[in-house]
Amino acid sequence: MQSEIRRTLEAVKNGTISVDEALHKIKMDPFVDVGYAKVDLHRKIRQGMAEVIYGAGKTPEQIIGIADVMIKNGQKTILITRMSGETAEEVGKVHTLDYRAEAKIGIIGELPEPDGIGRIVVATGGTSDIPVAEEAAVTAEAFGNQVCRLYDVGVAGIHRTLAHLDEILDASVVIAIAGMEGALASVIGGLVACPVIAVPTSVGYGASFGGISALLSMLNSCASGVAVVNIDNGFGAGYMASMINHLNGSSKEQ
Amino acid sequence: MQSEIRRTLEAVKNGTISVDEALHKIKMDPFVDVGYAKVDLHRKIRQGMAEVIYGAGKTPEQIIGIADVMIKNGQKTILITRMSGETAEEVGKVHTLDYRAEAKIGIIGELPEPDGIGRIVVATGGTSDIPVAEEAAVTAEAFGNQVCRLYDVGVAGIHRTLAHLDEILDASVVIAIAGMEGALASVIGGLVACPVIAVPTSVGYGASFGGISALLSMLNSCASGVAVVNIDNGFGAGYMASMINHLNGSSKEQ
Amino acid sequence: MQSEIRRTLEAVKNGTISVDEALHKIKMDPFVDVGYAKVDLHRKIRQGMAEVIYGAGKTPEQIIGIADVMIKNGQKTILITRMSGETAEEVGKVHTLDYRAEAKIGIIGELPEPDGIGRIVVATGGTSDIPVAEEAAVTAEAFGNQVCRLYDVGVAGIHRTLAHLDEILDASVVIAIAGMEGALASVIGGLVACPVIAVPTSVGYGASFGGISALLSMLNSCASGVAVVNIDNGFGAGYMASMINHLNGSSKEQ
Amino acid sequence: MQSEIRRTLEAVKNGTISVDEALHKIKMDPFVDVGYAKVDLHRKIRQGMAEVIYGAGKTPEQIIGIADVMIKNGQKTILITRMSGETAEEVGKVHTLDYRAEAKIGIIGELPEPDGIGRIVVATGGTSDIPVAEEAAVTAEAFGNQVCRLYDVGVAGIHRTLAHLDEILDASVVIAIAGMEGALASVIGGLVACPVIAVPTSVGYGASFGGISALLSMLNSCASGVAVVNIDNGFGAGYMASMINHLNGSSKEQ
Amino acid sequence: MQSEIRRTLEAVKNGTISVDEALHKIKMDPFVDVGYAKVDLHRKIRQGMAEVIYGAGKTPEQIIGIADVMIKNGQKTILITRMSGETAEEVGKVHTLDYRAEAKIGIIGELPEPDGIGRIVVATGGTSDIPVAEEAAVTAEAFGNQVCRLYDVGVAGIHRTLAHLDEILDASVVIAIAGMEGALASVIGGLVACPVIAVPTSVGYGASFGGISALLSMLNSCASGVAVVNIDNGFGAGYMASMINHLNGSSKEQ
Amino acid sequence: MQSEIRRTLEAVKNGTISVDEALHKIKMDPFVDVGYAKVDLHRKIRQGMAEVIYGAGKTPEQIIGIADVMIKNGQKTILITRMSGETAEEVGKVHTLDYRAEAKIGIIGELPEPDGIGRIVVATGGTSDIPVAEEAAVTAEAFGNQVCRLYDVGVAGIHRTLAHLDEILDASVVIAIAGMEGALASVIGGLVACPVIAVPTSVGYGASFGGISALLSMLNSCASGVAVVNIDNGFGAGYMASMINHLNGSSKEQ
Amino acid sequence: MQSEIRRTLEAVKNGTISVDEALHKIKMDPFVDVGYAKVDLHRKIRQGMAEVIYGAGKTPEQIIGIADVMIKNGQKTILITRMSGETAEEVGKVHTLDYRAEAKIGIIGELPEPDGIGRIVVATGGTSDIPVAEEAAVTAEAFGNQVCRLYDVGVAGIHRTLAHLDEILDASVVIAIAGMEGALASVIGGLVACPVIAVPTSVGYGASFGGISALLSMLNSCASGVAVVNIDNGFGAGYMASMINHLNGSSKEQ
Amino acid sequence: MQSEIRRTLEAVKNGTISVDEALHKIKMDPFVDVGYAKVDLHRKIRQGMAEVIYGAGKTPEQIIGIADVMIKNGQKTILITRMSGETAEEVGKVHTLDYRAEAKIGIIGELPEPDGIGRIVVATGGTSDIPVAEEAAVTAEAFGNQVCRLYDVGVAGIHRTLAHLDEILDASVVIAIAGMEGALASVIGGLVACPVIAVPTSVGYGASFGGISALLSMLNSCASGVAVVNIDNGFGAGYMASMINHLNGSSKEQ
Repeated sequence: MQSEIRRTLEAVKNGTISVDEALHKIKMDPFVDVGYAKVDLHRKIRQGMAEVIYGAGKTPEQIIGIADVMIKNGQKTILITRMSGETAEEVGKVHTLDYRAEAKIGIIGELPEPDGIGRIVVATGGTSDIPVAEEAAVTAEAFGNQVCRLYDVGVAGIHRTLAHLDEILDASVVIAIAGMEGALASVIGGLVACPVIAVPTSVGYGASFGGISALLSMLNSCASGVAVVNIDNGFGAGYMASMINHLNGSSKEQ
Repeated sequence: MQSEIRRTLEAVKNGTISVDEALHKIKMDPFVDVGYAKVDLHRKIRQGMAEVIYGAGKTPEQIIGIADVMIKNGQKTILITRMSGETAEEVGKVHTLDYRAEAKIGIIGELPEPDGIGRIVVATGGTSDIPVAEEAAVTAEAFGNQVCRLYDVGVAGIHRTLAHLDEILDASVVIAIAGMEGALASVIGGLVACPVIAVPTSVGYGASFGGISALLSMLNSCASGVAVVNIDNGFGAGYMASMINHLNGSSKEQ
Repeated sequence: MQSEIRRTLEAVKNGTISVDEALHKIKMDPFVDVGYAKVDLHRKIRQGMAEVIYGAGKTPEQIIGIADVMIKNGQKTILITRMSGETAEEVGKVHTLDYRAEAKIGIIGELPEPDGIGRIVVATGGTSDIPVAEEAAVTAEAFGNQVCRLYDVGVAGIHRTLAHLDEILDASVVIAIAGMEGALASVIGGLVACPVIAVPTSVGYGASFGGISALLSMLNSCASGVAVVNIDNGFGAGYMASMINHLNGSSKEQ
Repeated sequence: MQSEIRRTLEAVKNGTISVDEALHKIKMDPFVDVGYAKVDLHRKIRQGMAEVIYGAGKTPEQIIGIADVMIKNGQKTILITRMSGETAEEVGKVHTLDYRAEAKIGIIGELPEPDGIGRIVVATGGTSDIPVAEEAAVTAEAFGNQVCRLYDVGVAGIHRTLAHLDEILDASVVIAIAGMEGALASVIGGLVACPVIAVPTSVGYGASFGGISALLSMLNSCASGVAVVNIDNGFGAGYMASMINHLNGSSKEQ
Repeated sequence: MQSEIRRTLEAVKNGTISVDEALHKIKMDPFVDVGYAKVDLHRKIRQGMAEVIYGAGKTPEQIIGIADVMIKNGQKTILITRMSGETAEEVGKVHTLDYRAEAKIGIIGELPEPDGIGRIVVATGGTSDIPVAEEAAVTAEAFGNQVCRLYDVGVAGIHRTLAHLDEILDASVVIAIAGMEGALASVIGGLVACPVIAVPTSVGYGASFGGISALLSMLNSCASGVAVVNIDNGFGAGYMASMINHLNGSSKEQ
Repeated sequence: MQSEIRRTLEAVKNGTISVDEALHKIKMDPFVDVGYAKVDLHRKIRQGMAEVIYGAGKTPEQIIGIADVMIKNGQKTILITRMSGETAEEVGKVHTLDYRAEAKIGIIGELPEPDGIGRIVVATGGTSDIPVAEEAAVTAEAFGNQVCRLYDVGVAGIHRTLAHLDEILDASVVIAIAGMEGALASVIGGLVACPVIAVPTSVGYGASFGGISALLSMLNSCASGVAVVNIDNGFGAGYMASMINHLNGSSKEQ
Repeated sequence: MQSEIRRTLEAVKNGTISVDEALHKIKMDPFVDVGYAKVDLHRKIRQGMAEVIYGAGKTPEQIIGIADVMIKNGQKTILITRMSGETAEEVGKVHTLDYRAEAKIGIIGELPEPDGIGRIVVATGGTSDIPVAEEAAVTAEAFGNQVCRLYDVGVAGIHRTLAHLDEILDASVVIAIAGMEGALASVIGGLVACPVIAVPTSVGYGASFGGISALLSMLNSCASGVAVVNIDNGFGAGYMASMINHLNGSSKEQ
Repeated sequence: MQSEIRRTLEAVKNGTISVDEALHKIKMDPFVDVGYAKVDLHRKIRQGMAEVIYGAGKTPEQIIGIADVMIKNGQKTILITRMSGETAEEVGKVHTLDYRAEAKIGIIGELPEPDGIGRIVVATGGTSDIPVAEEAAVTAEAFGNQVCRLYDVGVAGIHRTLAHLDEILDASVVIAIAGMEGALASVIGGLVACPVIAVPTSVGYGASFGGISALLSMLNSCASGVAVVNIDNGFGAGYMASMINHLNGSSKEQ
């Protein structure tokens, strides 16, 4: 971004663009205003990844409109998260859509080949955590990662966790997803030598308080190398894990 | 208690005691009023265990006074919990006192021989949980239990927990004590076939909120057979574990 | 479990099984993966009790599938908790099901004869607490306990509590279930010489905050010998009480 | 107050006072501004009781100054609450002061003869609640009530509560003071036919959260006829109980 | 109650009743067990007021059943609170029912003549608080009180509060009902010389947190003579106010 | 108001009105009681602005009734907030109504010409905050302000915020509306030299806790010149901003 | 700021400065880095007011150092908030310092003449709120406002509030400061036609929860025209009030 | 770990070690029990990093003892966190200690050369966050990372953040540390294409609630690629960032 300003300044100096054009360029370039939203166009360049539309609370028409602008601007892969089946059906009439019902994610365009450093393990404590896990897993796949799913390996049956020790130890990043007491993150964090992204879920009842119990557990993990995202935020975990799994010289803006 | 009332009623009927005496007996017998406290004298009979003085906030003089009344009434073993070293020194000048500094418990009289069903394991997640664990362990010992201490076996190093699998599996009751994320209770609860009493501790910082994080974790344990006592309540856990470990026909009031 | 590892190691030494078989055995034996769940098969041996399927959020098909695996592996009694009437109807078409509507529990197979140390009292503060109480009572019965139900004996009419003093004093374990201010646990805890499992319920309104008021009351009980499970967790209380009521030499894993 | 306005209006009409005097009277009369405080002088008339100085955070000089203004205006009895022993000593050098150390209340002037409808019972769950109870009891006495103190009658030993049934049933108002689980208010509320003022105290540890547990218990009391004041607010309870105990035709402003 | 025991004891002594009869009398008399509830029969004697059925969560059949037992035992006035219109219609087919829709209270039998010390003022901050106010007002009327309703007199328009100063100052008890910031209780508490029962309501949005904001305001009222009941607890306030308004020598149990 | 009292007093003195008339005038003038509400008539004079009916929880009939009283008393512009489309349709049958669906505000009468000091900027972090923003914007317009809407300028794409720097720096007041982490208020507060009214919204999920996260962020803003209103309180923000934008000598009551 | 960029761009175009100089200017100009802090130099221009040093947690040396840089850059008035008396003494040895002990504010340089639109009223509920009020009042004075202090006018004695009606109605902005139940903001907000900045204070005990009670009250104020700052944030309220009181065409950046 | 078990099994098969030796090896090898702690020896191998002693609550003797065991087992670099200056002085008498006072970290042994993928930026919102930042920075350096410190770049002066855009955009990982409203994480998260570890701090007052405000802000960040650690957990952030910055084929256990 800084270098863009430099390029703009040099263009002003060289007389290639006027002062007003320069001002306009600095302010107006990076997004298109479609009324109900300001669509970012350079996020890929600025953040190194594909575009995402947060589908919750958006009408099919709005989603289609935003996708149109993105496609017109050359975006190849678009992820639409938190999209209901009904909305997906509508969007699918206009754009070719690969809808993953459990993850509630729709994909326009092709998924990239996995090109990360290693494999991302997505582990859950129970079966009720699977929708959040699928949101994380599909997100990670959409951003070019190989994903290994380990579901229902909660710590109340520690042998089930340990039975998958090979896959867990082999991961470059682990996404640990659990509701209730959220102990999975600590147990996995104590086993692995790679970063763990912990996702508390709202699974549970009574004193789980909609995910607060798991959230606090994960924030207080006695294992080092654990960081936490919002309750039920599978997308955020998958995105973060992908960022980590692609970290290298070329991930920095040129 | 019911049978006491029956005996009193029969004594009234037989003319052994008057109506006023009966009324007085029902109301006045079970405790002695020393002004600042009403000292229970029949708790041993009513609850099957030795007498306990909760030492927090009591002066040495008050503790000595209460102990005097108990001893006069034939109590053989008295436990004084949450007593500072300074208070213990003062009390020790009057009564022969066995003071366990780490547990902050003073004992007047002799400890009973272990006569429980099995052995109580007291396990902690970290070293900072040891004072609470000692309160639990000494309490259990004072009520006639054999205790096995397993300290610093937290789940972030699950191999440390598993290394003591033999002792853990051999317990009749496990007291699982942990602060921070409190995952120890779930992991142990998933391994054993005996009741687990979970004690959250106030160990931790930030989002541990003085033990709330561990408390919620333990209440939401995905393992069955886990029940929870108040934050830092080592005494309560030791007492409960002893009750369980002595359960049999004779524990019921005759 | 430790002894299983020893047996496996000895089998390796004796050449009875290969190293790879041993590794596989350690990792793969204790459960069957049916895709949406990992079905524990040895919990009975490991935890000393029958198998339980947590029905909430599972489809009839999933419940039937999990039960199939369990039955194939020789499980005689299966408890399905938190199962709606509709689901029960579907499951009942495939398996002979004894459905207890108030407890929302379905039972496949026969209930065992009571073989516990004594009788478990299940007491509630009010009539609205009865569904939680039935979950606890049926669970306890399913694990081989004699149960005495004392409903609507809340402390605001202390004479109603005291009227049942005989049954309460005669219990080997009491499960005290109450919403609102949850005082029942303290009052009963002060009367009995046996362990009390307290279950806060979400019954109430306003500042009961969905069970938080009762939960805090029970955790802060001034009576000793009280431990607490999650809000509305009747199953957990029944399971814990059964564990306690069956405690003896043979409950430990051989 | 309304009638005062009427009198003022009539004085204006009659020309006894000017409009400006009337305005001044309406605005300026009821208090004296001593800089750091506005001292109410007519509260006795307006609220039917003696004057009170809330001593917390006031210097001895400020307390003396406020008392001076009150005495000059004819106040016979002044209560100074939440006053430390050190402050009391200083104030005692200037005004004859009856200082009740446990209640932290100082009294200037004479206490009135009890003239209430009946007797106020002040009951506590434990010995640690006594300072709050004394604040309530001395306040009630200072406002002309006969007080019966019942300390350490908590519900964990329900026989101790029941032993005092006569005094409790005989009260015109009961002040029920308890920390921890605060069940005392419910148990007493279920026994008596008179109003119960419940005072949660900050006595306890862990999940008592500085009195929140007792506060919630009392607000959720399943007994009717219980109302609650702030945590540790002994003064408020004593004042409210006195108001109730003096309720009659003459308590209404004439 | 104590005197009942005395009478029973004397009857035993005199041989009028046997020991077993005495025991049975002490335990069994005060309620009838109808399966789903234990119906108190002597509450009127014990607590000085008519019987109340808490209607929430009870079927029309259960309410009818409980009312039947009460009527059979001579109860003349029965109040059914928190009863929906549908339930009222069903109950009305069996018993003559005076249903107050806004208060959600049904009355079987006749209301007593007002016989309290003075008049109870029921004031609300806004119009949305009226259902809670009607619950309080109808309850107070059902227990023999004259009620003055002052609705929508919230402090944001302090002139509306002051316009009713005469009625407010004339009350023997004020019930101050408000949601949102709950300031009404403090303003009225500062004006009157009689007890104020404050009822926080769940009226509001956002940071009113379902009544917590008003509840805390009222507990922290800087005015003396204010006590608080649970959020939306109109019944409790009306009951408490009636107790206060009937306080006299004869309110004590003879 | 004070001057009104003076005028009344002078009229009494001059004999123009009687004492009783004066008393009546002081108490009865400022509102009309329509049973379910007390309609303020002089709020415009007292608070300098048009009348507002809070529509939530009111029936169409009640709204029409209140509006009738207002119109009869000469009110020209009436704002009805939080009114559903269905209610608006009913009200529209009786009064000419300009209904803004997104803002859920209905307007009876004509909007005034903008006459404020400057322009009010209404900015939102995301598209989901728009309904709250429209409530604020329409309110501000209804009270005579020019409004500039800047939607979806959240800080996660700081370039989108900065792109509108000109409009933001040019505002006389900024209303910053955001859910989730609510950082918009701090970023704008750090840029501008005018007051910022921050409105947290309930937009978000998980640990946003219905707007608590944004509320706390805004209260803790490290930027000076930021004050906060209730969660989702667009009306309050628009009203406050209008007050500020019209501040001058004439805004004070004459 | 935008216009600064324009000037810089024009300078680049005219060749007055080089591209690198321009870049440097954009990044480096607005503050001086003194190691432990980045001292803003253009905030006055950017935000229209004098410079402020937040003194809490800064050593006298750090404060002196930051003040030195500010003075060197031409700042005439410097406000140091939350500064202890000890620190003030040290700073006073180097710079001429006007230290207001109650407000904990030190002033270097001269205070400006009042030049606001009207007068700012600073009102408190009690005497314990005075330190927060003085922080607000001195801040407002330091930014060129005339301030009227009304202390101890809390709503429990509503006549004390009303006695100052003239001053309150005459204000251009009111700062309403209160702890405990924080009702002052609502009562004043209902009286005045100008903006009210509400400041909750941590004054109180028990369920005031360090200011949460007052904070929630103020956020839920049923009066319009009230906005809230952080607990005890007198400075923020004074600053905001000054911004409002100086609002006019010239407050916008030129 | 799995491969260790394999090697052990093969050794058993080959007769190199006995079954008992194998069992002992599996259980006993990975740590040394020094009584008050179980010292992990293979964490380096298991987790890929140097050993850390959590100094809080440990005596100098305990720290020295644990360090002794580690050094004896070949550990080259030992980090002691949360160690006071007094303790550091004592430890420094026995081991050569490099004590960083602001970070409260002591280092025994030499720091490694930076060998990470890129540079870690540690940014803070204010100067009070610096101690937490130094804990993070020194930790990252101790694990072989190059660190760039950007302190006091909070969003209230967004130009200060933007002035360091080059360093921020150039980072491989950013650690964003802020108290109060914690907006820094969102603003930076919106700018960079690399992972952001957010650390809420307890800096602030009033409604910052000891870091809860910042914690919630960061969890709800509208920017993707942000994960959060516990309040004030600088060590955890530095450790996690180092893990990420060293991620490559060789970080996986061989």
